Amino acid sequence: MPTVSELGERVLIQRITARLAQPAWVVVGPGDDAAVIEPEPRALDVLTTDAQVDGIHFDRRFVPPDAIGHRALAVNLSDLAAMGATPRAALLSLALPEDLPASFVDAMLDGLLALASRHRVALIGGNITQSPGPLVVDVTAIGAVGPRRILTRGGARPGDEVYVTGSIGGAAVGLAWLQEAPASGGDGPDDPSLRQTAERYLRPEPRVRAGMMLGRNRAASACMDLSDGLADGVRGIAEASNAGIAVDAGALPIDAAVRRWHEQRGTDATIAAVAGGDEYELLFTVRPAHRGRLRQVQRLVGDLPISRIGVVTKERKVVMREAGREREFPQGFEHFR
Amino acid sequence: MPTVSELGERVLIQRITARLAQPAWVVVGPGDDAAVIEPEPRALDVLTTDAQVDGIHFDRRFVPPDAIGHRALAVNLSDLAAMGATPRAALLSLALPEDLPASFVDAMLDGLLALASRHRVALIGGNITQSPGPLVVDVTAIGAVGPRRILTRGGARPGDEVYVTGSIGGAAVGLAWLQEAPASGGDGPDDPSLRQTAERYLRPEPRVRAGMMLGRNRAASACMDLSDGLADGVRGIAEASNAGIAVDAGALPIDAAVRRWHEQRGTDATIAAVAGGDEYELLFTVRPAHRGRLRQVQRLVGDLPISRIGVVTKERKVVMREAGREREFPQGFEHFR
Repeated sequence: MPTVSELGERVLIQRITARLAQPAWVVVGPGDDAAVIEPEPRALDVLTTDAQVDGIHFDRRFVPPDAIGHRALAVNLSDLAAMGATPRAALLSLALPEDLPASFVDAMLDGLLALASRHRVALIGGNITQSPGPLVVDVTAIGAVGPRRILTRGGARPGDEVYVTGSIGGAAVGLAWLQEAPASGGDGPDDPSLRQTAERYLRPEPRVRAGMMLGRNRAASACMDLSDGLADGVRGIAEASNAGIAVDAGALPIDAAVRRWHEQRGTDATIAAVAGGDEYELLFTVRPAHRGRLRQVQRLVGDLPISRIGVVTKERKVVMREAGREREFPQGFEHFR
Repeated sequence: MPTVSELGERVLIQRITARLAQPAWVVVGPGDDAAVIEPEPRALDVLTTDAQVDGIHFDRRFVPPDAIGHRALAVNLSDLAAMGATPRAALLSLALPEDLPASFVDAMLDGLLALASRHRVALIGGNITQSPGPLVVDVTAIGAVGPRRILTRGGARPGDEVYVTGSIGGAAVGLAWLQEAPASGGDGPDDPSLRQTAERYLRPEPRVRAGMMLGRNRAASACMDLSDGLADGVRGIAEASNAGIAVDAGALPIDAAVRRWHEQRGTDATIAAVAGGDEYELLFTVRPAHRGRLRQVQRLVGDLPISRIGVVTKERKVVMREAGREREFPQGFEHFR
C-alpha cells in the first residue's frame, strides 16, 4: 500500500472527491479554487473550526483511523448543535506525515463521511498538505440557523433550570481504558461495558437534533457543548450570562460502568466526570415557564436522556451542592496547558 | 516573555479577541461555540481553507511571524479572488508548539489582521491547540459572490485569450534569496531589488479587487489563482474547460530582477517562472468579444499590470510557443511530493 507522499496531493484529492455526492445547493464543489454554496433561505450562516492533533486529541496507537475521522467532524457538529444550527457542509484540511499509508486516509474518510451522511453534511472542499510533524485533521463546519433561533452562552437568567443531554464522564474513562486495554498491548480488563464506554471517546455522538430542536422550539435560554467538560461548560454559561450556577451533584447523569471504574480505583466519579473533557453533550438552561417546550423537545429527540442538574443563581459563582453542603466547583479541563 | 503553553489557551484567545472589531453583519463573534453571520443578500457563500505548515510552506528561521500571518490569510483571499468573490470573514485555527513565545503569536496576528483590515475581512472565530509538531496556521475564508458572477476554472472556450495579473517567478527567486540572504546568516548579496522580490514570497498581495471586478464585469470566462504556479494553472484551466492552452513564452511578465537572478546562475528564467509555486496572481481567460470589459477592469484595478500570455486552443494539450517553435509545457509544482 503506498504512502500519502508516494501518491501525491493530486491523486489523494481525487480519491477523496470521487467518493463525494453533492446536494443541489452546492453550486461549486471540490476541485476549484473555492466552494460555492447557496445560503439557506431566511437563515444565518453558522461557522466553526476545530483541529484534532495526533498526540494531543488522540493517539494513533489506539484510536483507529475511522474514529479519528469521525471525531474530527463530530467536534465541529457539536459546536453547531450548541448554537441551535442545522449542519450543512464541511471543509477538511489535512496535514499528513509523509509516511502515512494512503489506506489510513481512506479509513479516516470512512469515519468522517459516515457521520456526515447521517447528518446530511456535504464535504464541499478542503486542503491536503504534507507535514514534518504529527497528523492534524482540521475541519470547518457550516450550518444554518433562523435569526431568532440562535442559542448563545449568554442568555441564562437567575432562576433558569440547568440541563444536560446524555451522560457525562464516559469519555475520560473510555480513554483511560483504551490506554490500558488488551487490544493496545496494555493489560486492562476486557469489560464489554467499558468497551461501550470507550465509544464515547472514540465516536462521540454530536447532539445535532437536540440542539436544532432546542433552538427551533425556543426552549433553551443558553446552550454550550461540553467539549472541555462540564466544569468548563458551567463556568462558560455562568460567565457569559453574568450569573452563577449551582449544580446538584446527585443529579449528574453518570453511567454505572463509569461509577464502577472509579470505585475500583478509589477515585471520585463525580469530580472526574465534571472535570473531564471530550464530552459532546449539550449543557443548556431553560426558563421555568418553558418546561413545556422542553418536554416537546424531549419527545422529538426520542430516547436521548435529558437531566436537570442545577439552577442559575443571581450570585456570580459556580457551586456544587452535595448532601446539603455547598462546595466550590471542581476545576475544568483546559486542552492547552 | 511567556510561551504559549505558559499563557494557556484561554488567555491566548482573550489576547486575540481583544484586538478584534466586528462589523454589524456578525451576529455572534468569537467566544461562543460557533460564529454566526448574516449572509450577503442575494449572494452565494464562497468557502475555502488552506493551511501553512512550518518546514513546508515557510521556515520560521527566515520568515518573520507577521509574514506567516499575512501569508496564511493571503493564500485564502487569493482563492476567493479566483472565484470572483468579495472576501468577508475568516476563521483561524492554530496548532502551536508549546515553546513558541506568546509574542510570536501577537506578531503573527499583526500581519494577519493588517491584511484583513485592508480587505475588510472580519476574523470571526477560530481555534487554538497545542501541538507536539510544527506550527500550523490554518485559515478558512468566507466570501460572497453574485449567482451569475462566479468565476470557475471550467468556462474557457477555444479562441479565448489567456491573461495573467502582475508578474510571475518572483516568489521562487525571493525564497531562494531569503535562504541565502545575509539576514538569515547566509552569504547572499544584499540587493535592494531582490529584497523587494522577496516580498513576493513573504507578503504576497492577493488580487482581491481584480478577481471581484473580473466577476462583476463578467469579463473572464475562467479564472484560477497561481498558488501552485503558472504551469499548474494553465493545466488546471485547460483540463477543467476540456480545452488546450498555448502560452507565448515571450509574453510572460517576468521582472528584470528575476531574469537577472537566473542569468547570473545560468538557469532558465522562463522555465523557473512557469514551474515555481507560491505565486498569488490570477490566471484568467477572456472571450475576444469581451476585451472591452477587460479594459474596464484594467481601469478599475489601477496600476496592476494585466498581460495577455496566450490563447485557448481546441486541441487538448498545453504548449509553450517560443521563437516560432512549440514545445511541451514545463511540469508544474506540486506541494506534496
